[in-house]
Amino acid sequence: MAASSASVLSRFEPRRLADLVTPCALIDVSLVEKNVRKMNASAAKAGAPLRPHVKTVKSIELAKLMTASHPGGITVSTLAEARYFGTAGYTDILYAVGIAPAKLPEVADLRRQGIDLKIILDSPEAATAVRDWSMAQRVPLSVLAEIDADGHRGGFDPGSAELLEAARILHGCEFTHFAGVMTHAGGSYDCRGKAALQAMAVQERDAVLVSAEQLAQANISCDMISVGSTPTALNAPSLAPATEIRAGVYPFMDLYQAGLGLCEPEDIALSVLATVIGHKPRFNRLLVDAGALALSKDRGTGAQEIDRGFGLVCGLDGTVCGRLLVETVNQEHGLVTSADGSTLDFAAWPIGSQLRILPNHACMTAAAYDAYLVLGRQGDTVEARWPRCGGWGVG
Amino acid sequence: MAASSASVLSRFEPRRLADLVTPCALIDVSLVEKNVRKMNASAAKAGAPLRPHVKTVKSIELAKLMTASHPGGITVSTLAEARYFGTAGYTDILYAVGIAPAKLPEVADLRRQGIDLKIILDSPEAATAVRDWSMAQRVPLSVLAEIDADGHRGGFDPGSAELLEAARILHGCEFTHFAGVMTHAGGSYDCRGKAALQAMAVQERDAVLVSAEQLAQANISCDMISVGSTPTALNAPSLAPATEIRAGVYPFMDLYQAGLGLCEPEDIALSVLATVIGHKPRFNRLLVDAGALALSKDRGTGAQEIDRGFGLVCGLDGTVCGRLLVETVNQEHGLVTSADGSTLDFAAWPIGSQLRILPNHACMTAAAYDAYLVLGRQGDTVEARWPRCGGWGVG
Repeated sequence: MAASSASVLSRFEPRRLADLVTPCALIDVSLVEKNVRKMNASAAKAGAPLRPHVKTVKSIELAKLMTASHPGGITVSTLAEARYFGTAGYTDILYAVGIAPAKLPEVADLRRQGIDLKIILDSPEAATAVRDWSMAQRVPLSVLAEIDADGHRGGFDPGSAELLEAARILHGCEFTHFAGVMTHAGGSYDCRGKAALQAMAVQERDAVLVSAEQLAQANISCDMISVGSTPTALNAPSLAPATEIRAGVYPFMDLYQAGLGLCEPEDIALSVLATVIGHKPRFNRLLVDAGALALSKDRGTGAQEIDRGFGLVCGLDGTVCGRLLVETVNQEHGLVTSADGSTLDFAAWPIGSQLRILPNHACMTAAAYDAYLVLGRQGDTVEARWPRCGGWGVG
Repeated sequence: MAASSASVLSRFEPRRLADLVTPCALIDVSLVEKNVRKMNASAAKAGAPLRPHVKTVKSIELAKLMTASHPGGITVSTLAEARYFGTAGYTDILYAVGIAPAKLPEVADLRRQGIDLKIILDSPEAATAVRDWSMAQRVPLSVLAEIDADGHRGGFDPGSAELLEAARILHGCEFTHFAGVMTHAGGSYDCRGKAALQAMAVQERDAVLVSAEQLAQANISCDMISVGSTPTALNAPSLAPATEIRAGVYPFMDLYQAGLGLCEPEDIALSVLATVIGHKPRFNRLLVDAGALALSKDRGTGAQEIDRGFGLVCGLDGTVCGRLLVETVNQEHGLVTSADGSTLDFAAWPIGSQLRILPNHACMTAAAYDAYLVLGRQGDTVEARWPRCGGWGVG
């Protein structure tokens, strides 16, 4: 099967954008490379290697760009990703969603295949379940404690008694390896301004450092001290002795990240190619064939200073048409209008003409597609089709 | 390939819910059947057959339940669906999204395979493009005019000069068949109360009847006069001489439809099975492994009287846990809390326990999955796996 897929890929015939059937997901690799260089530089400055999170791209080819010249570890958000990337040769994988005990057989199966898959948890109850399963099955597992840096989602309170209790449960078992501590400052997405982002990056770092010190005093060492989100990673202080940074959306970036001041809309490497299918001058509206499924219903920018609707329109060359955005979506329809109420130039967008839409949230938009189409360096053709991994496996 | 798929399906081994890996999409067929019966009765009362819209279910097995004892026509929202259902034997298909001229070769290919695929458009400009392509390629096409019943999205104004112009362009061409008029009262989703829904159903019907009469006076007949949305179809007046009703979400229903008063939450046939992966008593929060990708970011109920967050929690037996909802989602995390602020009973939801989440918008939630898992009649096992069709084809 792999050989067959490879030969299909190698046979990809370059095609003009005008010959594509829309909607489809386009990638500008030169922007991916620019965004990756920027993140690599930030990580180097902070003094910790990246363990890129592949939950956004879910693509082997893009992961290779993200891990070039790195130690090679990656982060995943599903076990389907762990299997996909593990099969492709990534053997150092952190599954960064709290483990459900029913998923341990799949974790064990992946580990038997030579993948050093690490799991996370955030309660003594989960630690007990993992330890008991590991001992009963005589299967070694590698486990990190998730730390709550900001009340955003899950995790132990830094330095808490529950953290120590869970670490002791895992540390004291011959089959479980307590690998360390990790956190994700999801609260960084709510920060406004560079100073707030920098403060959140310090807060994120300190949450795991406090926890690792607490455990060290109990003679439990942390091989891994892992932090990260794209906003904090791009504003990271010196991180030592943290051992790694996780970030995921940075190769693409998106309008939400632009709203945080971390990029310009012109830096966004993922866009959706769409076609104009109708004009409604009475409502100052273009209809396009990219709707809720093609763009997602993410409205994250609605809470930011500049509301981008369901996406910002750019021309086929990637130039942002500053005043056009997707105001409303139905399942397969996008309703495009001007952000400032100015009258649309309908003659510039005839029925059948194409445009590109930049996503509010790249992780959500990319998930609608089985593959990316890779723009040629001139921007008027696609030169490759890069598959991506979706779903969770069934049941 | 088909034989192989069939044998895989027939080999599906019943599995306990507790043995499933989450998140996954569950279907309660007895509720589907109940919802289908209700819609069938409403259509019979209105005096027009259904042409079910399969954009929600995207499943052959579910489409069969929707079309049993019907004339057999279906509606689709993508050409990928047209190919999927056409290959399965559905030959009378309406593609109900305004045609982009670049999609005509695929339309023609499907028609050559014996599928009577009808397309829609809403401008003289599109009519000209379709006519010109049809003549140049000497390929017959069947075309309806989309009518705007409510300013919701696209369509000709009812009885407008542009409608007549477009119909004449198509009617006068030897390769294009002008098949009639269609509308979709998407504005019904904004109605509050039964009287408003009934009024919208009348408005929807009258928009196409006015248009068909206008065209009849110009000696252009409409074989098809097509109306529909689930809210208007369940509140339809006598529809004659309309020839058919389109509706799609009704086999599943969802929380938005419940908010419109069209069903109870207990009638919703689609749910997402999730697992508790964390407790955060300080925030009165359960963490589950169904997040933005598993549920979608649809927040439609946020504009209704009862806000259901990102979904309503029910137990494994389908009983609604009235006070629990998904308040926030991250990519793979759902944050569950009580709608009324009451303290969660964490002991009732231990780490590893499962729950089911009813969707705000079934079309969006279902789209995250490659297949449905079909609950056994007792509700504690899944007995079949029904694949679904996603995406648009690539490029």
